[in-house]
Amino acid sequence: MFSSPVLLLVLDLLGTFAFALNGALTAVRAARLDVVGVVALGSVTALGGGIIRDVLLGTLPPLTFSDWRYLAVAAGGALVAFLFSRALTRLNRPIVVLDAAGLALFAVTGAGRALDHGVGPAQAVLLGTITAVGGGTIRDLLIQRLPSVLSSGLYAIPAMLGAAVVVVAASAGVGAVLGVPVAVGAAGLVFAVRIIGLRFRLDAPRPPGASRSS
Amino acid sequence: MFSSPVLLLVLDLLGTFAFALNGALTAVRAARLDVVGVVALGSVTALGGGIIRDVLLGTLPPLTFSDWRYLAVAAGGALVAFLFSRALTRLNRPIVVLDAAGLALFAVTGAGRALDHGVGPAQAVLLGTITAVGGGTIRDLLIQRLPSVLSSGLYAIPAMLGAAVVVVAASAGVGAVLGVPVAVGAAGLVFAVRIIGLRFRLDAPRPPGASRSS
Amino acid sequence: MFSSPVLLLVLDLLGTFAFALNGALTAVRAARLDVVGVVALGSVTALGGGIIRDVLLGTLPPLTFSDWRYLAVAAGGALVAFLFSRALTRLNRPIVVLDAAGLALFAVTGAGRALDHGVGPAQAVLLGTITAVGGGTIRDLLIQRLPSVLSSGLYAIPAMLGAAVVVVAASAGVGAVLGVPVAVGAAGLVFAVRIIGLRFRLDAPRPPGASRSS
Repeated sequence: MFSSPVLLLVLDLLGTFAFALNGALTAVRAARLDVVGVVALGSVTALGGGIIRDVLLGTLPPLTFSDWRYLAVAAGGALVAFLFSRALTRLNRPIVVLDAAGLALFAVTGAGRALDHGVGPAQAVLLGTITAVGGGTIRDLLIQRLPSVLSSGLYAIPAMLGAAVVVVAASAGVGAVLGVPVAVGAAGLVFAVRIIGLRFRLDAPRPPGASRSS
Repeated sequence: MFSSPVLLLVLDLLGTFAFALNGALTAVRAARLDVVGVVALGSVTALGGGIIRDVLLGTLPPLTFSDWRYLAVAAGGALVAFLFSRALTRLNRPIVVLDAAGLALFAVTGAGRALDHGVGPAQAVLLGTITAVGGGTIRDLLIQRLPSVLSSGLYAIPAMLGAAVVVVAASAGVGAVLGVPVAVGAAGLVFAVRIIGLRFRLDAPRPPGASRSS
Repeated sequence: MFSSPVLLLVLDLLGTFAFALNGALTAVRAARLDVVGVVALGSVTALGGGIIRDVLLGTLPPLTFSDWRYLAVAAGGALVAFLFSRALTRLNRPIVVLDAAGLALFAVTGAGRALDHGVGPAQAVLLGTITAVGGGTIRDLLIQRLPSVLSSGLYAIPAMLGAAVVVVAASAGVGAVLGVPVAVGAAGLVFAVRIIGLRFRLDAPRPPGASRSS
């Protein structure tokens, strides 16, 4: 057990809430869905990454499905976004910031949970990244948009960085518990790199010879 | 064991047949696919919801894959639809009615199977709904259409209602077997609400301030 | 154990490499993604079919995720394609040939692994086919294209043929190991039928009455 169960739960529920708000606001903004569509898209965005992670870990039923707190936070967050969508969707910023927050929190908790299940370091980094980008990828598939992970500047890279910080910290102090400083530091790093990348329109390298305008 | 295995099997195979016809006719109509595409889309529509349910329950391999009867009914239904597609696709109604029938049957059997595996009532209602809408969602993703569950009037709500009837009936008579009257009543309720919703163009509430025309 | 583990591994890694190149080149060509998108799409194309197969077999975590060699070959192949994309994407042919090679190799290894896990012959043929077409289907979903399996001439049919050859050979010599001649012959058959189908624009039958031009 590398990780503190309480810390993981708190960060996980915060990430679930952030992605539920983000997915629901995306549903209102991009596709003008009704309340069922909004709650469905918010919940899938919030829970999808953890479900893919648990399928790949082979720990089924998925935690995010069997633990009612995840379901309640996901549905509750989506409903809140639905009710306040009039105020919130005028602004582009909340959607982007909430997405970055979910990305940051899930990169850390995904890597932590993967380590707890005894996978290797490469797999743990990968699972942290997949947990972080998975829900948003399902969201984009459902509303017929090119997934952010494939297109949107620095998206997977900060998640990978944050997951790597968690894995390195865990292997540096084997047996120790993933503490608040490491978790918050790693999540802060993901969030900062993501937001800076958006602010300055940074991109990962494109194929040699490909023109920048797509 | 809340449910009668024979009753669940019969309703499941009827739902599989309905969704296989629906998916295959959708393939012919929306995308003019060849026979392989038609059978593939019919089968995925018919089996997809049950596969997602079994992944979320952690009961792998999925019943709909390991039991050859599901595979045979799914492929057979899709082939029947392929052969008679000339007559059937002129009409919009069969596609809609078959979809409502599959939705109704799978909401009931999905909730029943979930209860049999000992999940909580909220999860059982959710799993019934997911079983009902899952296959159609994969169908819509594959042919690049906004999924019905996100957009199409009363779709998830009747499924949820029917699953809730099953769960309430089971908890009212703990240990009793899900009988024909409850199963048929719940499925009839789903079907009726879905068709009435379509007939009168009923929608779930839209976000406050959002215009109705999307 | 019907199959030689070494043979399966070698064919699997070759198929993984072919699909990683194919997915990465598709990413460069169709969507002009950055390096992360290219590696992500290449890896998903390479690993997706095996992951779906292992979910349906119930052997989780999936082999293609837990064995680092698959991850390394998938990411390495995608990176190679990224670096040489300038030369390669001018030509349409490499993408098509690599896709056929991956299809052929995964049809054989998918059926072999399914038999090793004791499923019935129909399920083994189906799982070989799903392993072969699964990664490409996820690739097409992610870049918002109608999946090849639904639309593109003879695609699933050669995979099914190759998987059937493996299953028949295994049942003819029960207990014997799937040898190089059968594996290479079956893969060659898939590859040949796929390429001939493309060359002569062969299609599976279309619905009666449907016009050919879609």
